[in-house]
Amino acid sequence: MNSKKLVTALIASFAIAGSAQAFEPLPAQPPVPADNPMNAAKIELGRMLYFDPRLSVDGTVSCNSCHNVMTNGTDNRPVSVGVKGQKGGRSAPTVFNAAFLSAQFWDGRAATLEDQAKGPILNPIEMGMPSEAAVIERLNKIPGYVAKFNEVFGEGGLTYDNIAKAIAAYERTLITPNSPFDRYLRGEEDALSKSAKRGMKLFEKVGCTACHNGPNFAGPELPTGQGFFQRFPTYTDNEYVKKYDFMSDKGRYEVTKKEEDKHMWRVPTLRNVALTAPYFHNGAVQTLDEAVRVMAKTQLNRDLSRKEVRDIVAFLESLTGEIPPQVMPELPQTEGMSVVGDQ
Amino acid sequence: MNSKKLVTALIASFAIAGSAQAFEPLPAQPPVPADNPMNAAKIELGRMLYFDPRLSVDGTVSCNSCHNVMTNGTDNRPVSVGVKGQKGGRSAPTVFNAAFLSAQFWDGRAATLEDQAKGPILNPIEMGMPSEAAVIERLNKIPGYVAKFNEVFGEGGLTYDNIAKAIAAYERTLITPNSPFDRYLRGEEDALSKSAKRGMKLFEKVGCTACHNGPNFAGPELPTGQGFFQRFPTYTDNEYVKKYDFMSDKGRYEVTKKEEDKHMWRVPTLRNVALTAPYFHNGAVQTLDEAVRVMAKTQLNRDLSRKEVRDIVAFLESLTGEIPPQVMPELPQTEGMSVVGDQ
Repeated sequence: MNSKKLVTALIASFAIAGSAQAFEPLPAQPPVPADNPMNAAKIELGRMLYFDPRLSVDGTVSCNSCHNVMTNGTDNRPVSVGVKGQKGGRSAPTVFNAAFLSAQFWDGRAATLEDQAKGPILNPIEMGMPSEAAVIERLNKIPGYVAKFNEVFGEGGLTYDNIAKAIAAYERTLITPNSPFDRYLRGEEDALSKSAKRGMKLFEKVGCTACHNGPNFAGPELPTGQGFFQRFPTYTDNEYVKKYDFMSDKGRYEVTKKEEDKHMWRVPTLRNVALTAPYFHNGAVQTLDEAVRVMAKTQLNRDLSRKEVRDIVAFLESLTGEIPPQVMPELPQTEGMSVVGDQ
Repeated sequence: MNSKKLVTALIASFAIAGSAQAFEPLPAQPPVPADNPMNAAKIELGRMLYFDPRLSVDGTVSCNSCHNVMTNGTDNRPVSVGVKGQKGGRSAPTVFNAAFLSAQFWDGRAATLEDQAKGPILNPIEMGMPSEAAVIERLNKIPGYVAKFNEVFGEGGLTYDNIAKAIAAYERTLITPNSPFDRYLRGEEDALSKSAKRGMKLFEKVGCTACHNGPNFAGPELPTGQGFFQRFPTYTDNEYVKKYDFMSDKGRYEVTKKEEDKHMWRVPTLRNVALTAPYFHNGAVQTLDEAVRVMAKTQLNRDLSRKEVRDIVAFLESLTGEIPPQVMPELPQTEGMSVVGDQ
């Protein structure tokens, strides 16, 4: 093999490797941390907690209020609404397939689902509980919870850490496999429309896969806590940046206060993206086609034709997977009293 | 039989008849109106609508938010919270067994579940939709709903009336039979504790059954729309009336503006009352034992001993029935857009 042929062969193998990395089916199971193994009782407890509005100060907001598993793991709102009608600053990311992400929240400030679950309960504009102790005090008044925590975690099982562990265990069941795209990758040629196939090629060709790669379309698999961050917007000299107010929230910088983190964001998954409108960290973009135009312009400085947008949207629609059948939890009750009031 | 014996016999037979009327098991099925027969598809559609926050103006409140079937058909709050954090004026009554009531709402202003369902969607402080037309316009954007309404009600099926019919059909499945009390009435002598049995007798003896009779403990079965109303409070010269602010809301008078309706209220069911704290139209009373003391004083001008209260509470706890297993609905979705915004 001469050197020119060798180079060509190497490029070809890189391209294949790159392509293989860019497009992978969603695994049936997410990674599970060694210190929080899954089991049926823990998942059931986590489901109860996830749906229980008594985890909020005034009994009006549950995890499911904003990450609604009946509406694709999100609330389909620009930003979410917490207790007392307060609006959050960012759009609720879907809980589906969050288990595949190596860092949680738009700014990646939580390393694990366990860490993430602890945040909103105590956030004054989300669920508004005043302290971990107040959460434990309240759940201690609900005999069914005390018994269930002891069953799952052993005597004295009702702790704030274990609340988070149970919720995270439930969330690790919220995986959406077998999208048309996954079925196509596994050999079902007809699972994708012609438009979706054109969109898939375009998605790679124009460079979307530079960031949206891997099985969750959220970047490479990284060690837990090491989020995959990118600058957004990269190109700021365009109509979209001002129109949709992309600069006022400085992303990861708001947490780290490091100059290099300004406008850095954890790359979100594109799984089920057709069902999680509105788009971006501030939910300012109403439709998926506009979101595609915005991304092409702000990240790749590229104007897509209407047909190109249509094809990429068709491809993104093929990333809608099967939502696992959801069981409605039976929440443990208190007799003759309520544990929530008009706080 | 001499006249004295005849009178005694008559009194005895009245007493038995009265007792039979006061204590009846909950039927397995509620009455179903002729113009809204139940079927599986309609119930499924109703369940979808019941859980869908997109029936509220900003996508944050569903029927289930305040009448939560995971928490005994209510929110266990003093008063409910609607869109934009607004508080309602009255405590959310449980949806369970509401199908047995001949009039709906605390003031009986709706004759049927169908009429009731139409109210909160358009109420500015509950779900806040601006008009029936706006509700239809929104659901028309969700293809899965359009198809489902046509399947259930025929072509052109998506109407405001049919939204209410579907929700009502689902609500008629929310019946809680087989409480310990019902099992006792059917001959299971051990279904009630000794305390509950004493409470049952006391409940009748002190006069609670004057209003809380019939299978739903909400008064006699009456024609649809003819609510069973009673004055509350009847005795106003006691500590409770001021302490719990029972006079500022004038009940049915607020609807009819008729003098005789001042402080008249539809008698609420006592089924599952142990699980629906806090109590009364304004949710001002935190615990069931206090609610029993309040009722005895305000309605019967009677001070109960601690033991009497304990026994009546034990009896009321025996009215907790079996909640039918709930299936989580799959809500129809929209691709590439959300139908709710930041209204």
